[in-house]
Amino acid sequence: MKISDVKFELKRYEYYETFHITGSSRNVAENIEVKVFLDDGTEGIGEASPSYRVNGEIISSLFSLESTVKEMIKGIDVRDYAKVFKIMDGLSKSAPSIKAAIQYATLDALSIEIGLPVYKIFGGSKDTIETDKTISIDTLERMVQKSIETFSQGFHTLKIKVGESLKEDMEKILAISEATKGAEYVIDANQGYSPKEAIQFANFLYENKVNVKIFEQPIIWNDFEGLKFVREASPISIAADESVRTKYDAYRLIKDDCVDFINIKLMKSGISDALAIIEMAKTANVGLMIGCMSESSVGINQSVHIAAGTGAFAHCDLDSHMLIKEEKFRGKFVQKGSTINLL
Amino acid sequence: MKISDVKFELKRYEYYETFHITGSSRNVAENIEVKVFLDDGTEGIGEASPSYRVNGEIISSLFSLESTVKEMIKGIDVRDYAKVFKIMDGLSKSAPSIKAAIQYATLDALSIEIGLPVYKIFGGSKDTIETDKTISIDTLERMVQKSIETFSQGFHTLKIKVGESLKEDMEKILAISEATKGAEYVIDANQGYSPKEAIQFANFLYENKVNVKIFEQPIIWNDFEGLKFVREASPISIAADESVRTKYDAYRLIKDDCVDFINIKLMKSGISDALAIIEMAKTANVGLMIGCMSESSVGINQSVHIAAGTGAFAHCDLDSHMLIKEEKFRGKFVQKGSTINLL
Repeated sequence: MKISDVKFELKRYEYYETFHITGSSRNVAENIEVKVFLDDGTEGIGEASPSYRVNGEIISSLFSLESTVKEMIKGIDVRDYAKVFKIMDGLSKSAPSIKAAIQYATLDALSIEIGLPVYKIFGGSKDTIETDKTISIDTLERMVQKSIETFSQGFHTLKIKVGESLKEDMEKILAISEATKGAEYVIDANQGYSPKEAIQFANFLYENKVNVKIFEQPIIWNDFEGLKFVREASPISIAADESVRTKYDAYRLIKDDCVDFINIKLMKSGISDALAIIEMAKTANVGLMIGCMSESSVGINQSVHIAAGTGAFAHCDLDSHMLIKEEKFRGKFVQKGSTINLL
Repeated sequence: MKISDVKFELKRYEYYETFHITGSSRNVAENIEVKVFLDDGTEGIGEASPSYRVNGEIISSLFSLESTVKEMIKGIDVRDYAKVFKIMDGLSKSAPSIKAAIQYATLDALSIEIGLPVYKIFGGSKDTIETDKTISIDTLERMVQKSIETFSQGFHTLKIKVGESLKEDMEKILAISEATKGAEYVIDANQGYSPKEAIQFANFLYENKVNVKIFEQPIIWNDFEGLKFVREASPISIAADESVRTKYDAYRLIKDDCVDFINIKLMKSGISDALAIIEMAKTANVGLMIGCMSESSVGINQSVHIAAGTGAFAHCDLDSHMLIKEEKFRGKFVQKGSTINLL
């Protein structure tokens, strides 16, 4: 069946609590829900959760793309989804979240047509994945409190936001680690440290036996040599997040041995580049995690299906839908605490 | 539907004419046809065309794997084909042709289950591909004669086998080029030259304005530095064939900038590594061609569907089924001369 129409809809979601990370604090997420309609009325759904901070995306500008995108892909049979993927690759630089949403909505429509869930289109590697939950930047007391609460809800891995003050971060992490024994941590500095600060922090975590799985994006995104310098000095695994948007970024980082892990987000890479990054990283023995922006259950659903289908991720950070107020859950999965079961 | 049985069948095909390449001359192809049966009786078909020269594969040893492979994948739902892919990756070193055949047969069964041709499972990038046809090593006169005949049958690109004598090869190529004006050539030395000979030959082709698209595997497979040396000195594109079996080989060659092109063959890499190589090569701006061993129409069908589905190949060398005597054509495609249309 051919694509007959494309529709964009603006969505606004309030956060339960202020989401504070290095250099950014927000109470509201503004997303664009996209629908791809087929000749026979079938509709595929996807969601773009744009990021100005990471992608330079402006929501009003993305929203204005509706008719352009429709003209680009109208008439294509969803069974030829690679054609849609290729056309959307043209938006990799300027509108990757729209690229992701349209690519996914196309797969969603195909999935309905052929009666095969999207994660099975990718091979159905797993039926279940585990996600962490994020503790955003706050006072030491409130971060400890929140960590205890989240850990007790069954989230074995806590993602801790740091990066605004090395000294305070050290105190906070020690206190959290003390209060949630048995937990595992992903530490995310969101580019907040200098390379030397990052190494100091990595050594501090290691020496204090904090159970850190991954230390994400310690320094500014564009300093690949700096990342390599930190990686080589750090006793714990270093991940790139903001540094990797396209597969070309990933190739450069991998080729130059800059990182231990790559954090793939569909909102940075779309599905096409995500798949390329997965293959490259697996081949080069670089670890993979998958993360999110501010997706609702519609957008998180996309990453859940890619993660389960490919089975490529050592860690999933797919929690934004738990942090925002959503009228109705619309994922094609069932979640209980940290455990996500595919449908 | 779950996999309930796996069957191997030995097949023997005679070549119409002796197939002579550097270091090898053969009149017979011995392949293994594999069938994957599902609970409901659906059968998926694939073919292994083993190579001792490239893979070290011995057909009797491969044939003895039938029950082992069956035990490995029995009970897996073909909708979870990634699980079969992963298990078959264990045979990458020892039995890549069996890996390819089982991976494809699984997809073929899935394709029947969901009513979607295999090339559409890969996204349906193209409905049509073009193949070359091979002129094997022979006397100058007979190679010229064969080239004229093949070119007049509508094969725009001729694949010319060389590598046993630099001086004779130069004379042969000039004569062929003179006799088939307007044609394009892929020159394949199958590891026959030294690095210096390879550079001499590349310069000779360039200076004599022979219309060469790709110069394949000029030197011994294991000399990656030599390939890089040849590539840097050659004015025409250098491809690796025997040097690339797994995705790890490809990664190393790409990372070290050793080649302009990679020749993917499912019989070397299976489908899983082929897909990884495609993503890496596309990202790194390394060209891609797809080739074959001695597959019948059953095995060529596999490569045809991967080539059309991914749309990744600048050149297709999928001609072995035209060189052997086969009782019945069994590809899920229609061919007229060099043009292959998918069904």
